[in-house]
Amino acid sequence: MNRRDISNAVIYRLPRYHRYLGDLDELGVERISSGELSKIMGVTASQIRQDLNNFGGFGQQGYGYNVKYLREQIGSIMGLDSDHNMVIAGAGNFGRTLAKFFSEQNTNFKVIGMIDVNPELKGEVIEGMEVMFPEDFPEFAKENNVEIGILTVPSIKAMEAAETFVKCGVKALWNYAHIDLDFPDDVSIENVHLFDSLLRLSYNLTNNKKD
Amino acid sequence: MNRRDISNAVIYRLPRYHRYLGDLDELGVERISSGELSKIMGVTASQIRQDLNNFGGFGQQGYGYNVKYLREQIGSIMGLDSDHNMVIAGAGNFGRTLAKFFSEQNTNFKVIGMIDVNPELKGEVIEGMEVMFPEDFPEFAKENNVEIGILTVPSIKAMEAAETFVKCGVKALWNYAHIDLDFPDDVSIENVHLFDSLLRLSYNLTNNKKD
Repeated sequence: MNRRDISNAVIYRLPRYHRYLGDLDELGVERISSGELSKIMGVTASQIRQDLNNFGGFGQQGYGYNVKYLREQIGSIMGLDSDHNMVIAGAGNFGRTLAKFFSEQNTNFKVIGMIDVNPELKGEVIEGMEVMFPEDFPEFAKENNVEIGILTVPSIKAMEAAETFVKCGVKALWNYAHIDLDFPDDVSIENVHLFDSLLRLSYNLTNNKKD
Repeated sequence: MNRRDISNAVIYRLPRYHRYLGDLDELGVERISSGELSKIMGVTASQIRQDLNNFGGFGQQGYGYNVKYLREQIGSIMGLDSDHNMVIAGAGNFGRTLAKFFSEQNTNFKVIGMIDVNPELKGEVIEGMEVMFPEDFPEFAKENNVEIGILTVPSIKAMEAAETFVKCGVKALWNYAHIDLDFPDDVSIENVHLFDSLLRLSYNLTNNKKD
């Protein structure tokens, strides 16, 4: 099956498989049946088999799945064979927080640059990176393969910042601005609204509602 | 209508109204019709009217909504009239990151304590808070009204940490551990998996798929 034809619902579930298999691997579990995995993950065994069949299966009748191998394969499907360079637009609290987090974590995702429009921040060094202006980004993008643009700017600046990235060929946006962005072309966007989930908790606390 | 009867779908959308109204307010917009709001938010005007009617309406025929008032009302519905105390279980990178973030931001959500099982961290002061052991939490919870427990522990420790909170009367869990938690009783849980969205971006980059 062509990878382009795989449904968003399946793609949506892949990271979850990756997480659970990582935990099983850490716990020393070497193989697992789709039935056992289904119990742990709270989905049907048939959905697991269907999902994984999109990529060729990986299971063996009567043996189940090899945990480490399956995790590696799913990681590889999701692009974890190589590193991905990211640049953060918005060198405020949350932008710095993310830069620090990724510089301390050993993942395939590397923050290699920070952008801010504030002249006072220009040239400031954050986690070893000199803050640049949006005007500096095209040059930076020519010299570095920037795959993911992270938006931590105020919402009214988000579209402009997104366009700065997209014009320079960045094909994926991780959006933390408080607005839902959408691009009609070949750009992938994930809108993350951390506060929304916190507000739902506070709604439930206030209204005494079980989620 | 009894607040307990309001559907989760409506509650899910409330924070989004709150965000968009906040932006409109910042931009100086004083009132807005459901039609205009529907264009900005990408939902139908009838859904907006239905959603808000759950709480008594707030709109006026021919006038629309008063932006500031509506935002305050929705904030109040979501419990933003008062502060909410939170304690973080897990004083690793991400836990510290969140503690720092909330201590710097002026929100209704206050981090007032940090828990870790690591004896080396016991007594260390993070953002003015002394790291405590899980055993210390019941006493702490008696003296402080802890409403929200934040989990930033490894997934195999998440259930234990969640139970530490729940046993002491914490009714809401904001879960960043890489596992989906569910409690059958009157505890609200929001599972946040930041990496899942990043992995979806990297999937799309790798497989050249438009989201």
